[in-house]
Amino acid sequence: MRCRATLAYDGTAYAGFQRQGDQPTIQLMVARALEALSGKRVRIVGAGRTDAGVHASGQVIAFDLEWRHALIDLRNALNANLPPDIAVRDVKQADSKFHPRFDAVSRTYIYSAYTAPVRDPLRRHTAWHLTGTPDRKAIEDAARLLIGTHDFRSFGTPPKGENSVRTVYRAEWKSRAGRHTFTITANAFLYRMVRSIVGTLVGVGLGQVTVEEFRGILAARNRAMALPPAPPQGLTLAAVEYRD
Amino acid sequence: MRCRATLAYDGTAYAGFQRQGDQPTIQLMVARALEALSGKRVRIVGAGRTDAGVHASGQVIAFDLEWRHALIDLRNALNANLPPDIAVRDVKQADSKFHPRFDAVSRTYIYSAYTAPVRDPLRRHTAWHLTGTPDRKAIEDAARLLIGTHDFRSFGTPPKGENSVRTVYRAEWKSRAGRHTFTITANAFLYRMVRSIVGTLVGVGLGQVTVEEFRGILAARNRAMALPPAPPQGLTLAAVEYRD
Repeated sequence: MRCRATLAYDGTAYAGFQRQGDQPTIQLMVARALEALSGKRVRIVGAGRTDAGVHASGQVIAFDLEWRHALIDLRNALNANLPPDIAVRDVKQADSKFHPRFDAVSRTYIYSAYTAPVRDPLRRHTAWHLTGTPDRKAIEDAARLLIGTHDFRSFGTPPKGENSVRTVYRAEWKSRAGRHTFTITANAFLYRMVRSIVGTLVGVGLGQVTVEEFRGILAARNRAMALPPAPPQGLTLAAVEYRD
Repeated sequence: MRCRATLAYDGTAYAGFQRQGDQPTIQLMVARALEALSGKRVRIVGAGRTDAGVHASGQVIAFDLEWRHALIDLRNALNANLPPDIAVRDVKQADSKFHPRFDAVSRTYIYSAYTAPVRDPLRRHTAWHLTGTPDRKAIEDAARLLIGTHDFRSFGTPPKGENSVRTVYRAEWKSRAGRHTFTITANAFLYRMVRSIVGTLVGVGLGQVTVEEFRGILAARNRAMALPPAPPQGLTLAAVEYRD
């Protein structure tokens, strides 16, 4: 049976989603939990490769498994076999050809930051600490420039054999009481694209880069133009959207 | 110079606030940071003894230190010497007789919980995972009974030589979109009192205990009557209030 599962995880302790031998990765931990249940090797495909320290509340994976019980029992059995920083939110039966990456029509990432004179220990794994207050209007103006189909080479590297043109459907910065959230939805993302965009947007907000310069950076198609990427702990893969 | 500092910390990795020899405690880490700066032994007094795994956003401590620079430099120097899970939010000069525990007029704790069918890995260190949805009205009715001066022996143990009468000024349960927050302010608290109250309130919310039974538990002055305490990770010492 082809299964489609939604994962949530705290990426702090992991070298990212993607399996890298025996390094601690999300894919390895989920594979081990599945293998403990089935007694067989299970191949897992994920929708997106999150970096080390990046989290997920809606990563989607697929795998083939023989399972004769209810899918909620599979969910519970997997959770019992996973460490506390990884959880399976649900498991559904999928079309036998379902592929979480190729079938996805879009992905949504959320980046969290906060402004405070001193770091907040309770947010150190989940948000970027800023000491300055970004100018929301300037960031909104810059973020609007991202919407649509562009070559995003200034903000990331495509996977081998792909071009760097992507379509951004939503790019929204919100600030309230010193907490900042950037939500971005695109058909797909380049490697490091969200963190690189956030790093440069915050530069706009803090007056290091003007909105016009941001426009120039996007147009330049040159990674050296963007500011350094925002740190990984603020980033969460929130959802992967499919046609169904 | 007598200093009064406000601390924030993630209590996950610590055996509580209070120094216990060389065990990892908040008090030990702050004492080490102060000793690294001053080259001398520094005695720290805290306003409240938080348990292992309990957090703070507004713990207050006092210590004596010779310091010839600005207090903001002391704050920054301490933060540079503290691990990332502890931060000094501010340092002020205090009256030479200032005592964070004896001078406090009240303390405010916040307890966080959430309802979800599956645990949320990103909240595992900061909230209690409930699978049921507590009845807000029932909890509010029970929480109201806590307001005022009562003998809280059913919910905790007093420090040696103290009685178990405390005055609760505020006891407020809020629920929104599956996230629950309980805020409680009292002149002082017994050992385990907040967690014990929350454990029993959630029992009321989930129908294990009626509001009338809750009233009886409070009146019984018998710890065996209360439900088990809520787990430590949901609890945060939010503020300590003084007359000034």
